[in-house]
Amino acid sequence: MTAVGRVSLVGAGPGDPDLMTVKALRLIEAASVVVYDRLVSQAILDLVPAGAARINVGKQPRHHPVPQEEINQTLIRLARAGRSVVRLKGGDPLMFGRGGEEALALAAAGIPFEIVPGITSAQGTAAALNVPLTHRGISSSVRYLTGHCRADAPLDFDWQGLADADTTLVVYMGRANIAEIATELTAHGRAPETPVIAVANATRDDQSHLISTLDRIAADMDAAALPGPVIFVIGEVVRLAASLGTLCHAPQPDRLAVAE
Amino acid sequence: MTAVGRVSLVGAGPGDPDLMTVKALRLIEAASVVVYDRLVSQAILDLVPAGAARINVGKQPRHHPVPQEEINQTLIRLARAGRSVVRLKGGDPLMFGRGGEEALALAAAGIPFEIVPGITSAQGTAAALNVPLTHRGISSSVRYLTGHCRADAPLDFDWQGLADADTTLVVYMGRANIAEIATELTAHGRAPETPVIAVANATRDDQSHLISTLDRIAADMDAAALPGPVIFVIGEVVRLAASLGTLCHAPQPDRLAVAE
Repeated sequence: MTAVGRVSLVGAGPGDPDLMTVKALRLIEAASVVVYDRLVSQAILDLVPAGAARINVGKQPRHHPVPQEEINQTLIRLARAGRSVVRLKGGDPLMFGRGGEEALALAAAGIPFEIVPGITSAQGTAAALNVPLTHRGISSSVRYLTGHCRADAPLDFDWQGLADADTTLVVYMGRANIAEIATELTAHGRAPETPVIAVANATRDDQSHLISTLDRIAADMDAAALPGPVIFVIGEVVRLAASLGTLCHAPQPDRLAVAE
Repeated sequence: MTAVGRVSLVGAGPGDPDLMTVKALRLIEAASVVVYDRLVSQAILDLVPAGAARINVGKQPRHHPVPQEEINQTLIRLARAGRSVVRLKGGDPLMFGRGGEEALALAAAGIPFEIVPGITSAQGTAAALNVPLTHRGISSSVRYLTGHCRADAPLDFDWQGLADADTTLVVYMGRANIAEIATELTAHGRAPETPVIAVANATRDDQSHLISTLDRIAADMDAAALPGPVIFVIGEVVRLAASLGTLCHAPQPDRLAVAE
């Protein structure tokens, strides 16, 4: 009888391999099987040993995503076959990474697991582009949310709370709904000139960004066509990036409040 | 004339050296001068080379904290003397780490700097104690805030927004005000039986925690006397920890909703 293996649910961070944790790097370098998402960067996948099995369970929108239940069963099957599995996810497994769901499935199946945190895309963005997520006198809290919703359901946010000028908002998967988000925030009292930074591929070689304002972000996003998943940071803290040397990149920089 | 040095504002993460980023570890191991806070763990300080200068600018409450302006001037002075300075902070420099203030001072003085993100205490807590910060169907957003306020000013929160049951709350520096926070949250509609986990020294050898509920956390904290800085995670996600094998530690576990 084969001894049961184990699963490490590992955050790969935002993309730059140097921003992985020491523990994540050690696990990847010793891995015999890696199950990974599409949000894990190629530079990190290049660190997986040549002889290790790689299983892509990437969830491409509109490209037949692998159902979560099937991913769970893959992890359980590999562990029951005695493998020590590295389950690699972009960012942090427990922040929009569905790590909790996989951990529950593993626990229910009696498979030992551990969770290794990762730097979020928001933290990578903040450090790479000099956007403090909190700042004395400007922002006293940070709120992470996802701008994606199931099917065609409307976004169901506490807009009044989100409009609080004292809070930095980090929006994941918000590309499709940024127009609605910006409109609702301003309708609930957030200033139209509130700065917004949109970042694609934060911390990677192909990182790109634009700085805009709530009342213009939707139009600027249409014009800029940033590639891949985008995160948005919304709040007065974005204005500090200009003082810290971050340049505006946008289709019409003369229109940008922060650049003025 | 001495060439100007540079400053790396580096997140040391929650305490376990393995949870530092690869980049942070590399910078520490090569450092000739390290300026650090009291939130940086001893295990990480032990990695600083024996010959490097160590400058403690720890801000002990009620123990003559080093003013922020003096820390800024120390960094500028060292860099102007040609030193490459590692400015090491617990957690992430841009989330309640005042990294933005130091970066602004450096930019104004013409000192080159870079920012290296770190795993937050909340992320360390979540991974170490199996508390998903978001979870499908339970929590769709996370809000980080600080429970500390200046002098004797009342806590000035958007309580209505914070009471949203769909949001996980992470409270830093909340020990002194947890009774008021819990009372206000329940007064604004958050369920009294909402689970809360309080964690001291997350990810360190001396990690300790207790699991309680909003209506009992203040009393349980008084009884438990957790050592050092504590973070609180408030929300239904804490209930998942029990399913994931995290045990309750509290003075009177029979009173704890989560343990039932």
